[in-house]
Amino acid sequence: MKLPHVIESQQFTVPLIMELFDRTRTMARVAARGGTRDYAGRIMATLFYRPSTRTRFSFEAAMHRLGGSVLSTEQAREFSSEIEGEQLEDTIRIIATFSDVIVLRHHEDGGAKRAAAVSTVPVVNAGDGSGGQHPTQALLDLYTIYDECGTLDGLSVALIGALDQGRTARSLAYLLAKFERTKLYFVAPPELQIRPDILAYLDDREISYELCTSIERVIPTVDVVYQTRIDRVRLKEKDVDLSAYKIDADVMRRMKPRAIIMHPLPRSVEIDPVVDEDPRAAYFRQARNGLHVRMALLSMLFDEE
Amino acid sequence: MKLPHVIESQQFTVPLIMELFDRTRTMARVAARGGTRDYAGRIMATLFYRPSTRTRFSFEAAMHRLGGSVLSTEQAREFSSEIEGEQLEDTIRIIATFSDVIVLRHHEDGGAKRAAAVSTVPVVNAGDGSGGQHPTQALLDLYTIYDECGTLDGLSVALIGALDQGRTARSLAYLLAKFERTKLYFVAPPELQIRPDILAYLDDREISYELCTSIERVIPTVDVVYQTRIDRVRLKEKDVDLSAYKIDADVMRRMKPRAIIMHPLPRSVEIDPVVDEDPRAAYFRQARNGLHVRMALLSMLFDEE
Amino acid sequence: MKLPHVIESQQFTVPLIMELFDRTRTMARVAARGGTRDYAGRIMATLFYRPSTRTRFSFEAAMHRLGGSVLSTEQAREFSSEIEGEQLEDTIRIIATFSDVIVLRHHEDGGAKRAAAVSTVPVVNAGDGSGGQHPTQALLDLYTIYDECGTLDGLSVALIGALDQGRTARSLAYLLAKFERTKLYFVAPPELQIRPDILAYLDDREISYELCTSIERVIPTVDVVYQTRIDRVRLKEKDVDLSAYKIDADVMRRMKPRAIIMHPLPRSVEIDPVVDEDPRAAYFRQARNGLHVRMALLSMLFDEE
Repeated sequence: MKLPHVIESQQFTVPLIMELFDRTRTMARVAARGGTRDYAGRIMATLFYRPSTRTRFSFEAAMHRLGGSVLSTEQAREFSSEIEGEQLEDTIRIIATFSDVIVLRHHEDGGAKRAAAVSTVPVVNAGDGSGGQHPTQALLDLYTIYDECGTLDGLSVALIGALDQGRTARSLAYLLAKFERTKLYFVAPPELQIRPDILAYLDDREISYELCTSIERVIPTVDVVYQTRIDRVRLKEKDVDLSAYKIDADVMRRMKPRAIIMHPLPRSVEIDPVVDEDPRAAYFRQARNGLHVRMALLSMLFDEE
Repeated sequence: MKLPHVIESQQFTVPLIMELFDRTRTMARVAARGGTRDYAGRIMATLFYRPSTRTRFSFEAAMHRLGGSVLSTEQAREFSSEIEGEQLEDTIRIIATFSDVIVLRHHEDGGAKRAAAVSTVPVVNAGDGSGGQHPTQALLDLYTIYDECGTLDGLSVALIGALDQGRTARSLAYLLAKFERTKLYFVAPPELQIRPDILAYLDDREISYELCTSIERVIPTVDVVYQTRIDRVRLKEKDVDLSAYKIDADVMRRMKPRAIIMHPLPRSVEIDPVVDEDPRAAYFRQARNGLHVRMALLSMLFDEE
Repeated sequence: MKLPHVIESQQFTVPLIMELFDRTRTMARVAARGGTRDYAGRIMATLFYRPSTRTRFSFEAAMHRLGGSVLSTEQAREFSSEIEGEQLEDTIRIIATFSDVIVLRHHEDGGAKRAAAVSTVPVVNAGDGSGGQHPTQALLDLYTIYDECGTLDGLSVALIGALDQGRTARSLAYLLAKFERTKLYFVAPPELQIRPDILAYLDDREISYELCTSIERVIPTVDVVYQTRIDRVRLKEKDVDLSAYKIDADVMRRMKPRAIIMHPLPRSVEIDPVVDEDPRAAYFRQARNGLHVRMALLSMLFDEE
């Protein structure tokens, strides 16, 4: 199955997703016994133009668990000697001469696509631009639902927060729409609701969804609560209050006994720490799944060659 | 012997210290022949909220010499996407999902303790806050004395410099007090003398000590001279002059022939470079011992599991 | 053959260069099959006081392809806790206690020489100061000519650009002067011409050269076009225009069919991207050669011990 680069969620078909998740299961077992040496000698370059310690560490840990080596930069934008007029393309061409895969976080929308166009080795998009893609986050979110719920069919999922700019929520909605009988609830104040492009896509695929302004009615019915980050600076600007959307012990009492709570992390105040002890709090398992999904993805890229 | 985390010097009993030092001797031999692969597959995350290239490299070299892999950040405070309201605790929980040990340097007192409280993998404190702990430095200092002098009993040790804020001198005094017939000399101008908490502790353990304002009388009698860093900005503020405390060729002539000079490094003007050639100058051997002590500590943490 | 440190181009004699290039050929084959484990357990410290992601990655990839491990800092100047009065020398002495080779980029001329004077392990200069040396760049440039042209004797080479401050062009001229019947063309506006010290050196060795202000006459006759970086800020200050020195499709038509174009990269506007498709564009192969030359150099340093 062809996987030359990992640029955007759209490139993942259901069969490719299921192949990836099968391999992710295997990698979870491999990681549990301390990793493998199967990919010893392979070099991954993590080229981050914007720092993100967690995402970078997750990719690098995946590479180490596969037995490979890592070249790493935390802040290529500041630290590279890129000069006026230099192209990202040249940097990629050079780094491709001494690495086997490039994991790129770029500050411009479409940065990963530009990199992939010239790279002689696979490029993995670890987030590009503000309105761009972060496909491995979307895949680890979807895998978490699959792993926790045992299926991806017939699930009802509430996506909560500032959904208009929520890259993770948008991508996840996109991926869930590929599965049967999905029901989505977009829970946000009107000013921050999910944008029409996603809704048009869902209409097109005949996916059932509702827009809600409160979590009250939704919480008792859903299988998955996907809470997102609260950016307080932005809330102040928009003059909206998301405190009614916070998950706390009270909200937990109204959730289904086998539902799960997810969050891309880091969190601010939107999930009360008391929730952490509840077995339905899946967000730290979600973080660990990121390691396994990335091990699976990297191994698929290497095996393709 | 239980060693779940390495947070502060106080947790090291004499038997634990001696076990560590036995293992350090072994690790010195292992390092001399190029290291081992015994801990291949283990991942150490070095999470530095304040940069310290030397300490970080020492830990990372220890991990490499053990055959393991490293995730590394030089400046987590600036580079992580930590948001307003995010907790160190969440970062640790996430990183613990894809590493086997976390080496943490945090800018707040008690940062390491907070991390250890939530981590599912061992946390090693590589320095926290300004008044906090740096236990591996204290242990490598103590090991150096043990290795150079052949014993830890009955030694007389002069601690010199701005002792009121000298984290290393304070920690070392604390550890030396665990051994028999230790005699300590605190050599500093009155404004910069060691704080009463340490003296109370020594009184409690019936450790003999003297406070001195000059190195003259002390130098010919001690087995160990522990010189500390001169922060010239601070000296100016306090309007004191530490130049009389400098170690130079003249001072060396008055030292015992088998005494040693130590320094946590980096040094400023407080040790004259001519002293480097003297075999009693132990500070570069001390730096190397840091590698071996850290190899020993990491291996003990891994073997505990 | 003695190679204790790699500090400046001058230390490379023709026999040493040829030994290095033989080994580089071997390393190209080793890298193509994914590297070796022959140097497993060796530790390289990359200590960059000025960031340069590409050069650092190239060295680190070389070390990984040899099976070794890496300690890395992107910005030692900002991140190390070096204090007022601390010496580079002490930092090197410390890092030498836990690494097997130190790759140093320092911001001061002569930094590498100072480091080598005190280091107990080999030091490799990865660029020092602005007027300083960058010997591995010069060696990979020379290797590229050797590899592409099949010989280093009797070649005519055009060096183009702001040659007065062009470290790479200066070093390459120096190395080429060691070979027989070399003919050099220095192509630059008078304000930016190569400095007299290089010309005096060439006179001394009876190397034939010409100074030119235009590429017109030179392009059809040379075997190698070595284009260098255009620093537009500096051009503005000097009020000169280098646009006439740009390599584009038109210039390519007038080049010999087997000549090559080189560039140390990153480039700005001085080579038109359309040139990339031409098989005579050797600059990305040149970047890859950097990996192989550095593998060869590191292995020679290790084998010396």
